[in-house]
Amino acid sequence: MGMDYSRIEDWILRENSFDPEKLGKCEAVMSLGNGYLGLRSATEERYLNETRGLFVAGTFNKFDENEVTELPNAADMTAIHLSVNGERFSLTEGIAEDYTRELNIRTGELRRSVTWTSPKGVKIRLAFYRIVSLKRLHVIAQRVEIVPVEEDVRVEIKSGINGKMANTGSQHFSDGDKRFYDKRVIQFVQTTGQSKIDFVDTTVHKLALDGEILPMEAEVYIERREIFAGYSVDIKAGRTLSVEKYSSVYTSRDLDMEGKTAAQIQELAVETSRELESLGYEVLKDESAKQWEEEVWNLAPIRIEGNVLDNFAIHFAQYHLRLMVPAHDARMNIGAKGLSGEGYRGHTFWDTEIFLLPYYIFTAPKTARKLEEYRYLSLPGAHAKAAHNHYQGAMFPWESAWLDDGEVTPEYMDVDILTGKPNKVWSGFIEQHITSDVAFGVWQYSVITGDEDYMEKYGYELIMDTAIFWASRLEPGEDGRYHINDVVGPDEYREHVNDNAFTNYMACWNMKKAMEYYHLLKDEKPEIFTRLNEKLSLDAAYGGWKEGCEKLYLPAPTKENILPQDDRYLSCRDIDLSKYKAQENVGGITRDYNLEQINRIQVSKQADVLVLFFLLEDIFPQEVKKASWKHYEARTLHDSSLSLSTHSVLACDMGEKAMAYDLFRRAASIDLGPFMGSSNAGIHAASFGGVWECVVYGFGGVRMLGGRLRINPSLPEGWTELSYTIIWKGQKLAVDVTKDAVNVENLTGTKKVEIEINGEKHVL
Amino acid sequence: MGMDYSRIEDWILRENSFDPEKLGKCEAVMSLGNGYLGLRSATEERYLNETRGLFVAGTFNKFDENEVTELPNAADMTAIHLSVNGERFSLTEGIAEDYTRELNIRTGELRRSVTWTSPKGVKIRLAFYRIVSLKRLHVIAQRVEIVPVEEDVRVEIKSGINGKMANTGSQHFSDGDKRFYDKRVIQFVQTTGQSKIDFVDTTVHKLALDGEILPMEAEVYIERREIFAGYSVDIKAGRTLSVEKYSSVYTSRDLDMEGKTAAQIQELAVETSRELESLGYEVLKDESAKQWEEEVWNLAPIRIEGNVLDNFAIHFAQYHLRLMVPAHDARMNIGAKGLSGEGYRGHTFWDTEIFLLPYYIFTAPKTARKLEEYRYLSLPGAHAKAAHNHYQGAMFPWESAWLDDGEVTPEYMDVDILTGKPNKVWSGFIEQHITSDVAFGVWQYSVITGDEDYMEKYGYELIMDTAIFWASRLEPGEDGRYHINDVVGPDEYREHVNDNAFTNYMACWNMKKAMEYYHLLKDEKPEIFTRLNEKLSLDAAYGGWKEGCEKLYLPAPTKENILPQDDRYLSCRDIDLSKYKAQENVGGITRDYNLEQINRIQVSKQADVLVLFFLLEDIFPQEVKKASWKHYEARTLHDSSLSLSTHSVLACDMGEKAMAYDLFRRAASIDLGPFMGSSNAGIHAASFGGVWECVVYGFGGVRMLGGRLRINPSLPEGWTELSYTIIWKGQKLAVDVTKDAVNVENLTGTKKVEIEINGEKHVL
Repeated sequence: MGMDYSRIEDWILRENSFDPEKLGKCEAVMSLGNGYLGLRSATEERYLNETRGLFVAGTFNKFDENEVTELPNAADMTAIHLSVNGERFSLTEGIAEDYTRELNIRTGELRRSVTWTSPKGVKIRLAFYRIVSLKRLHVIAQRVEIVPVEEDVRVEIKSGINGKMANTGSQHFSDGDKRFYDKRVIQFVQTTGQSKIDFVDTTVHKLALDGEILPMEAEVYIERREIFAGYSVDIKAGRTLSVEKYSSVYTSRDLDMEGKTAAQIQELAVETSRELESLGYEVLKDESAKQWEEEVWNLAPIRIEGNVLDNFAIHFAQYHLRLMVPAHDARMNIGAKGLSGEGYRGHTFWDTEIFLLPYYIFTAPKTARKLEEYRYLSLPGAHAKAAHNHYQGAMFPWESAWLDDGEVTPEYMDVDILTGKPNKVWSGFIEQHITSDVAFGVWQYSVITGDEDYMEKYGYELIMDTAIFWASRLEPGEDGRYHINDVVGPDEYREHVNDNAFTNYMACWNMKKAMEYYHLLKDEKPEIFTRLNEKLSLDAAYGGWKEGCEKLYLPAPTKENILPQDDRYLSCRDIDLSKYKAQENVGGITRDYNLEQINRIQVSKQADVLVLFFLLEDIFPQEVKKASWKHYEARTLHDSSLSLSTHSVLACDMGEKAMAYDLFRRAASIDLGPFMGSSNAGIHAASFGGVWECVVYGFGGVRMLGGRLRINPSLPEGWTELSYTIIWKGQKLAVDVTKDAVNVENLTGTKKVEIEINGEKHVL
Repeated sequence: MGMDYSRIEDWILRENSFDPEKLGKCEAVMSLGNGYLGLRSATEERYLNETRGLFVAGTFNKFDENEVTELPNAADMTAIHLSVNGERFSLTEGIAEDYTRELNIRTGELRRSVTWTSPKGVKIRLAFYRIVSLKRLHVIAQRVEIVPVEEDVRVEIKSGINGKMANTGSQHFSDGDKRFYDKRVIQFVQTTGQSKIDFVDTTVHKLALDGEILPMEAEVYIERREIFAGYSVDIKAGRTLSVEKYSSVYTSRDLDMEGKTAAQIQELAVETSRELESLGYEVLKDESAKQWEEEVWNLAPIRIEGNVLDNFAIHFAQYHLRLMVPAHDARMNIGAKGLSGEGYRGHTFWDTEIFLLPYYIFTAPKTARKLEEYRYLSLPGAHAKAAHNHYQGAMFPWESAWLDDGEVTPEYMDVDILTGKPNKVWSGFIEQHITSDVAFGVWQYSVITGDEDYMEKYGYELIMDTAIFWASRLEPGEDGRYHINDVVGPDEYREHVNDNAFTNYMACWNMKKAMEYYHLLKDEKPEIFTRLNEKLSLDAAYGGWKEGCEKLYLPAPTKENILPQDDRYLSCRDIDLSKYKAQENVGGITRDYNLEQINRIQVSKQADVLVLFFLLEDIFPQEVKKASWKHYEARTLHDSSLSLSTHSVLACDMGEKAMAYDLFRRAASIDLGPFMGSSNAGIHAASFGGVWECVVYGFGGVRMLGGRLRINPSLPEGWTELSYTIIWKGQKLAVDVTKDAVNVENLTGTKKVEIEINGEKHVL
């Protein structure tokens, strides 16, 4: 039961028994995709507790005025209903033998096979293959093989397009045009209700018996929100019926469909169908696998020697990091669940900048630039949010979807166990650190890549505009200082706090960075300065930044060297947290205490100040970090999937190697591990970035500090070698770490690279 | 497998094996209801192929501009998730023994019991009981009993309210307020998207062990579109855990909620919950059974001796005729599937007047009046439709929902097997006979009941207003006659026909009836005449009616005495129809021919002119009826569930007793019979009225002819006695028919009643 890691050395994640009660796990962690579309790996045959999901990046829609914009679950094209001599194939009935489902993360192919004996005793061998093409972003290809083992059978196949899918009951699409072409090609147009995005879904089947193509006309069915084809085939024992299904999704939001009418897209999709059919499953799979090799595995290889599971875990992270990222289009960003589920509604959080961006910056800078262009393109939403709250500048939304809609965090979630009413979610209103996180991401991207073009077009403006927000956000206190009151920090267990250390230090950093760039532009790039000065009144803003930085209250460490998370945390009571520290599922404390009660306990979802140390590691002395680490780590429940990896990296920095490794393992287990329920709503996107951070930042020791590259590796017990590549200002560096040595090679070699390795400066 | 009729003498319809592939049948035919709400009998545990459904009469909503108004599927409150020692109870897994599901149509209670051995070998005995109260229109009550057979077990129960239900993927509701009161009472408010009707759904659980109430707090869960409670109970072997669940639905459209805010309704519903809980399941069931006895079985008893299945069939019809009818509110009418499924979207058709109204007129005249008041109240919609089509007067919509929205027939349905595109549905545009059907219903109702109050307030106006439409509808031809071109008659296999006999004769009848009433009002009710003359300009209209009747082309019988269905039918080609005549499922011909091709074949879905003979039986000579019957019956596929009963009644009139009985049996088998797929989208409301017509009009020989009551009974082979009651102008008559005698007794006895029995006049 559960996940099977026996073939991970072949890059294969497996399950070898089927549990109809625990479908969400494999649907999510074995999902397929290419950044344009994401497909949950729900099985061809349907089950009661399945959650089928097909998501196209950036095609947001709002169901109604009571809901927030979310990424809609598009029509399903992967279900294939099979019946054998009138009995429906289902693993909940009859006997299943030799069951296995395998995701090959190297090729991106999902395979499943089983020998099934029906309740009436008919035995067949089934195999299912599926890819989402990494080469053709719009394409899904499937293959099913059916072999009767002992007797001749009649197989009935019903397969097509099902537009009844919804997001937990919310239907985002209008029922639309349905069409058969030549009784073979099936097409369904669905349009999002509010955002009016047309989805053109097209599919076609190819049947063959022992490889010989069967020229068949389908029985055609058009029903409400559904169009499908029916086929009946007699198969003699031992012969193989193969059913290949080629599907495509195009939408009117696609960059490559711009200017095309729905009818033109429909025509193009029919042509695509014919092309896919002529290529066949095998060719489509191979060309996609080749694309994986070129685009991911060869470009950013990482290898851990000494622990095959850890080696698989980092590749598994890379696999999902490619699935989730819309590398093809800057108008969209990464959702908190990637494209693998409805969870968090496809929204983008600080996760992008803090947990995910480092991977793309260091391995795929063009993709990283797209993610940062998205923030620039969504300035209209940030301005709207600032104006709505009577602030100035760019106040980024905590949750972000469309470029211009501003805040999209839902207002209520879960239940207050005391009042019986839904809990208000405060993040959208007062979790404001996201704005400096965005600025921090810009800075990271630009320093590591050296992409001055980005800075000139977008980056400087973003940093200035966010700093303008912060200056307007400060509140004068009776002590003559500025304060930032009534916020939520990264530790979301504490609502309505004042002078949250993370928020205040990062706001200060943001304004300081703006001042630094103000001078840089004025001195070195006067045209850009003039343009931005006209747009943002930099000269006027500068005074606010300066005064803000000078007068902003920055919590100081206590005499025990503990940095206070906010003005109240350290005076709250302590309770015995061992029950929650040992929990298998997150959020246990919220079933015993309501949020108001949790607010008065020294307990953290994730430890704010430790995240702060992680980002701004050079401004706090080691003794403050150590004492704070000790205080907060003991009180942190890691009820956010983001928490583990930052804590692991910090534990490395603290020299707490065993704990660092333990936290890394837990981070890597969030989706890959054996817990069967936690990935239901989708994979944890940020945690995959976190796993890469654990490996490359933590054990690999890579860090950009004040503009300089530093590598201080420290392998955990059991790892004999760690090798990875990073791209630093356009130069690709191959780093190889063993217990005794660190080797860095500049593979590009067109520029000199300065690195500090284990405290020593090197020039490559 | 299939339906079990072994207990029909106890009024019980049964299934004794469970087929997870054929769930729709029992969900629909065993559905519960009271005319206010209808509940499909989906099981407590959920299955992949289930179609759960809860419908509240008249709460229409339109999903979006591409769809038509329909009756939304409300949140589910009947699902109860059970797990035993961690294994989910499901009949698709483990071993089920002694399974039975029984609907007692006399009491309206649904029972189900099974001994289930889980896959791991835990054996429990389960029994499920459920009613929708006929006494308390808003209430559903359930009881579950769980007895561990051999070992102590731990049972987990998750149960609440699930608002993810949709109509084939179309979600009609906004997610709304969710609330727990005292960790026990669960409430969920959902509001229809476009029509803004609030649904207040409330439920509460009561648990008891061997009858002793367990005071338990629920684990509470609030999720998107869902709120539910969790309970865990340890049960020792042999003891009985009972879980009772009391649910209520109130809506802001309810007459008894008028003037109340949603908050007030919420409060009232919580009070109801507490009241229901204190009464308990047994009391609620008994009081509802008593209501069935008083309201249905004692008021309109029918008994067939000599054939228990036929006797059950007529009671089964009466059961569903009560479920489907909104006797509480004239602002809504009967849907084509009653309240038992999504089919036909809850819309009202000509079915009401032609197939259903006779039952209510003769057995429950107050309810019949409500149905006819609905037509008056929906005149705004009929005027709108007429104006939209540039006609005058009242043009009733083919499909009707809200009082004022006019036509709601969907524009497309199914697939054209030649072009691969959806078929256009022409009924909404050109199936115009509905307007005279409505007038015919008014006339029938008023003559049989003698309800002059209805006529004065609504009836005369309806007949005048519909006649005004017809006069405006006539088209002058080159032959100097008026024609009605480009229509669909009741035989929907023939689109765009001219001079459809049914349409033309009924239009003529309608105008003649208006002229008759014109004189009657002018002579006998001058105030009403004056009022209507001002409103409808009767004096001006009269000329149009007169000229219309005189000049309207009425197809004459051929020299072979066949009345031509339209100007083209008899010249179309004949094909061998035996394949389709023998079909088990309807519509087979549409899978071989598209509608354009069918239009050129002498084939009928139902035979128009035979329906015409049924309604206007005194205007055609017997030889025309006989010859036409012979011609059309052979070419009729009965692809409409409406067809069989009219043909059965006509076969009685023709003296074709064996055929009459055969057609009756087929009509009675539409839902009651063993075909497991045909009721999926809901029961066939009109066919239940049709069954009553077969029995009382056909074999019972009752007919209102030209204002007079006639009884010409003729029992089929095997029936030894048929007794029924009818209400004629307020006098309740008990009719008892044997092979040899007809006895009629006036049970009311306050007025004299004239009847023609077997050709002889009697006065009672």
